[in-house]
Amino acid sequence: MPITLQQCQTWDQADELAALRDEFDLPAGTIYLDGNSLGAMPRNALARAQDIIARQWGVDLINSWNKAGWWQLPTRLGDQLAPLVGAGAGEIVVTDTTSLNLYKVLANAVRIQQRRQPERKVILAERDAFPTDLYMVQGLLGFMDRGYTLELIDRPEDLPSRLGEQTAVVLLSHVNYRTGYQWDLSAASQQAHAAGALIVWDLCHSIGAVPIDLEAADADFAVGCTYKYLNGGPGSPAMLWAKPRHRADFWQPLSGWWGHARPFDMAVDYAPDRGIRGFLCGTQPIVSLGLVACGLEIFAKTDMHKLRRKSLALTDLFIALVEQECAGQGLTLVTPREHAQRGSHVSFRHPEGYAVVQALIARGVIGDYREPEVARFGVTPLYLRFVDIWDAVQHLKAVLTQREWDQPRYRQRGAVT
Amino acid sequence: MPITLQQCQTWDQADELAALRDEFDLPAGTIYLDGNSLGAMPRNALARAQDIIARQWGVDLINSWNKAGWWQLPTRLGDQLAPLVGAGAGEIVVTDTTSLNLYKVLANAVRIQQRRQPERKVILAERDAFPTDLYMVQGLLGFMDRGYTLELIDRPEDLPSRLGEQTAVVLLSHVNYRTGYQWDLSAASQQAHAAGALIVWDLCHSIGAVPIDLEAADADFAVGCTYKYLNGGPGSPAMLWAKPRHRADFWQPLSGWWGHARPFDMAVDYAPDRGIRGFLCGTQPIVSLGLVACGLEIFAKTDMHKLRRKSLALTDLFIALVEQECAGQGLTLVTPREHAQRGSHVSFRHPEGYAVVQALIARGVIGDYREPEVARFGVTPLYLRFVDIWDAVQHLKAVLTQREWDQPRYRQRGAVT
Repeated sequence: MPITLQQCQTWDQADELAALRDEFDLPAGTIYLDGNSLGAMPRNALARAQDIIARQWGVDLINSWNKAGWWQLPTRLGDQLAPLVGAGAGEIVVTDTTSLNLYKVLANAVRIQQRRQPERKVILAERDAFPTDLYMVQGLLGFMDRGYTLELIDRPEDLPSRLGEQTAVVLLSHVNYRTGYQWDLSAASQQAHAAGALIVWDLCHSIGAVPIDLEAADADFAVGCTYKYLNGGPGSPAMLWAKPRHRADFWQPLSGWWGHARPFDMAVDYAPDRGIRGFLCGTQPIVSLGLVACGLEIFAKTDMHKLRRKSLALTDLFIALVEQECAGQGLTLVTPREHAQRGSHVSFRHPEGYAVVQALIARGVIGDYREPEVARFGVTPLYLRFVDIWDAVQHLKAVLTQREWDQPRYRQRGAVT
Repeated sequence: MPITLQQCQTWDQADELAALRDEFDLPAGTIYLDGNSLGAMPRNALARAQDIIARQWGVDLINSWNKAGWWQLPTRLGDQLAPLVGAGAGEIVVTDTTSLNLYKVLANAVRIQQRRQPERKVILAERDAFPTDLYMVQGLLGFMDRGYTLELIDRPEDLPSRLGEQTAVVLLSHVNYRTGYQWDLSAASQQAHAAGALIVWDLCHSIGAVPIDLEAADADFAVGCTYKYLNGGPGSPAMLWAKPRHRADFWQPLSGWWGHARPFDMAVDYAPDRGIRGFLCGTQPIVSLGLVACGLEIFAKTDMHKLRRKSLALTDLFIALVEQECAGQGLTLVTPREHAQRGSHVSFRHPEGYAVVQALIARGVIGDYREPEVARFGVTPLYLRFVDIWDAVQHLKAVLTQREWDQPRYRQRGAVT
């Protein structure tokens, strides 16, 4: 029996998370399926910014470093974020960017292996990683002795056979930015450890989207975005987690004064804070950083398991409706059907994927395009309704059946993000 | 003849920059002498933040990467800032932090020397640099072969004798964060070059405070804050300049996707943008970054030579009034009297410097304290009046002559910034 609009409305009425949509200020006439690229704006973000700018900066000025706790923001936000990823207090900082944080933890992981197992000189990563991850490895290797190499696996199932006596560090994206494939965090961490390697996780497309338990998985290091599913604001600073057991082996090369044990002693020699603050570097962008709290406060009103149930219901619905409404229109599902292997976005290949996405955007359905040929739809259970999925697929059907995408203004490539 | 309050009022009436004070929203009852640590809030900052948050993020969402030009912000702001430092369009990015930008340009400078003069393995810096500069060198050296060392000079006049055949890179702070000492940018750059070294300038305490001409000085690289004299907001991203001639030798290890020549190709291998964008790394904190424009727009209404004239008049006045009003109270001038060697802040040593600064803050005169024993007063010609200097010194006189500092609540050390 086909799925109907009425059925979607019924699901919305029964949705225990429906009220969370009111926490966001969403533009009218838009179905926003790009929360996995830039999360929507929490309703309290503007008032929070006003407080940071007009009161903390404008009135209290330099005094806000102490009075407003600016200096502690990276760890305070880290503590707020910790329950979402199975970490404890004092184990996370929110700071800098994902790329920079990856550089820090990779350098730490490599340094640990240099001491423990110096013969291991391979960093194993995914060819299909978001490219900046690979670029940062390449930048890191540019400083190190020539023996170190980056090796790439082409498919998740190749991991076990590629792990070996040379593997120093494994770098994986928990959820793939393009396909939506989700690794088994525990299983892959165990495989890496069994092979003698350390493992670093990029959580950009999973944090706030799927339940994560870094402690239970026995992961070593993790980094991730706060501006996607966590709704921290455009380019908001990134998170960094290090397993507390690695503290004795702490080292990172971006050793700025914020990571110093006693930054106001103005000592000539760097002496790192032995806690997670050792991963801090320079002065943080306080307005952008402070806004991260707005998104995290919304997560505190629910839990990741409820969000995951709704996320899967929505992505299941998206897939089922596309198959029901758009059969024969050239779409090929890229995202795994198995729940355990799926994040919170759904991707389809289409030979005219770029133009299809542009035509949808013109209709107010905001997804995005990723090379090659992939139309990607982020499904954010905090603010999306079942009827939004219904409506989005109806728009997609219209774009495809009426060949709406086949117009120069949609096919011409511009800058995409 | 002693300087009088009336004389200060007369100078204010004649001040051609007086109207610029209205560009700022300053708290009532405060004399803010810490603009060299955190610049005051431009009056239009709040409206700008509202536009970035409510419209660009809230309504236009992901589309703002193109529509609002977020992707181009680092270079657009760089071009706005360029006239303040004698640089051309396309030569500056505003991104990340000063510490991180220093790491990038130091790595580039070292790499250039590795090719040209590999026998040179000394990085020469100042013992009295703001410590993060030294910490970043130490982090960099942690990756490099053991032959590299950091050597420190104790006094500016020691530079010529310490430059030698081993010197690869010289790192200097244009204006010292504590003493206010200003290097001759051209002379020191020429000395470094004559000795075969490259030179990197830290402009944190000079940018927006004194005229700078990087091109004329033939400097190689420069980094600096935007949240001090440029009034960009707390922790706003930092600037980075590289001499265009060094582009052919570009390399930097923080090689994230924002620095890629074609970031949306999603290529596996890093291929840097050959312009200044090659120094970008990860996704930038857009709200904090966008606010940098507010401060720069104020500078566009004047020029650095007018600002410098007023700055010197104000610092001269500060020194003269302290000598007139606070003689015998234990203050020792740390800042050079010679104009050419002075930045835009004035520092005094006092055995109870910490408590003196706290007592002044309680009176609404916001300076800051820097180890050891240094009371530091930033003099920002954009928004300070001659009568503010008069009033500040009257408060200082009261604190000292009445031993107001000698109270536990002022003498007890807390966190300072």
